[in-house]
Parts: sequence; structure tokens; C-alpha cells
Amino acid sequence: MAEFALDPRLAADSIPVAELPLSAVRLMRDANYPWLLLVPRRAGAVEIVDLSMDDRARLMDEIALVSTALRSEVPCDKLNVAALGNMVAQLHVHVIARRREDPAWPNPAFGAVPAKAYAPGAAEALASRLARRLT
Amino acid sequence: MAEFALDPRLAADSIPVAELPLSAVRLMRDANYPWLLLVPRRAGAVEIVDLSMDDRARLMDEIALVSTALRSEVPCDKLNVAALGNMVAQLHVHVIARRREDPAWPNPAFGAVPAKAYAPGAAEALASRLARRLT
Repeated sequence: MAEFALDPRLAADSIPVAELPLSAVRLMRDANYPWLLLVPRRAGAVEIVDLSMDDRARLMDEIALVSTALRSEVPCDKLNVAALGNMVAQLHVHVIARRREDPAWPNPAFGAVPAKAYAPGAAEALASRLARRLT
Repeated sequence: MAEFALDPRLAADSIPVAELPLSAVRLMRDANYPWLLLVPRRAGAVEIVDLSMDDRARLMDEIALVSTALRSEVPCDKLNVAALGNMVAQLHVHVIARRREDPAWPNPAFGAVPAKAYAPGAAEALASRLARRLT
């Protein structure tokens, strides 16, 4: 069986937050929205339905854990949870804290506006705060 | 406790497919994509994370069931699974069969192009075929 390796595009677009039992948690490099990814460490996984039943249950638990951490840490009017994968096939679940004042509201955040850089150190600081809530 | 009632906008935009233990399954009136909704019959539910742990497990099982039925019934290059709720707060999960030839690919389907009407009877026929796979 092939070993899991994070897709290079996901790796480039995000920084590490934490390793949960199933998923790597990453923070997107986009200050427009506090935006997390869960990437199940299963080589070749593309669709949620193709995970084992146990892994699907783990994924749901981790979506709930990450959702709780995210909205505890940042202002949030609505969570957006999505597994799309049209651009990057490797299974990844977006968990995004949306605000009515964010630049894409009420539309989906995906591709809505160009990514905005975090101030130096700000993404890493947010990732650390989230990691403390997750581990 | 208030009784569950389907949001009027979701009701207007979709037709019934099946009733699963947790969720009403609906087919969107949009022939651009075979597009299902799961709507957990829990009054006031907005976020996945606010469902009980049992209901979250049921929701994941029903996402998997609906995903399997959908891609067995229609051509599908990628499933898109998403709970957004920025426009309609009532918790609903989109499960969309995407094709590389569809009018929004590779972008998300939400709001990408105007909904296209099904031929008379075609949506109901697809809903019936899906219902047989779900029940």
C-alpha cells in the first residue's frame, strides 16, 4: 500500500495545525477567512464514501472537533463544511468560519476573491491557538 | 420543542426523493447537475456540529448512502459534499454528482450558472430511481 503524502498544492496553500487520529489539520494561507482543512491520512482517498465506515465515523468526529475549536477561537456567523476536490483530488474537507462581513458572503469562499496574506506570524499564531484546542 | 418543517426555499427548489431515518432527501430542480439535498429533520438545526453525536453519525451514514445511490444512478466524475447554509440557515447537506463537462466544472456548482429546467417528468423519474436505491 502506498504511503500517504500531502498533495503539494494543499501543502503550499496551508500551514500545519495539528495531527488528529485520522486527519492532518491545516490552516489555509488566506486571511480573508479562518479556513481549516482536514486531510485524512489515507493514501489514494478521494471520496468520503470510499473511506471505511470506521474512518467515516472518525472524519465526522474530527469535523465536529475542528468546528468547535474554530468557532471558539474566531468570530463566526456560519460554518461552511465541504469536500469538493474538483481541483485537488486528494480527499480534503474544508471547515471555514464565515462572517457576514467577509469578502465573499453569502457566496461560497472557494475562489471568490484572491487569497489575502496574513500579517507576518499571524497565521502561525492562530494555528498555535487552534492546536491547543485540538490536542 | 418546535416541529421540523422544511424551509420554504429548499422546498421550492427541490422535489422529494426519500425519507431516511434522519434526513429528508430531495432532488434539486436543476438539470445542470444531479444534485441531492439531505435535510436532517431536526427543528432549528443549523450546524452539523450542533447535532447530537448520534445524529452526526446518522448523517455521515446517510451521506454515504446517498453518495452511493447517486453515483450508481448517474455518470459522475467527482462527488461534491457540502453544508454551507449562508443563504438558507436550515441545516442541509448538498451531495452533487459533478462531471468534467458540466457547466461549472471545476468550480463549485453553487450559484455558478442559472438552474436549468428538467424535461417534463425527468426529475420525478430520476427521483424514483434514486428512491429505489435508498429504500
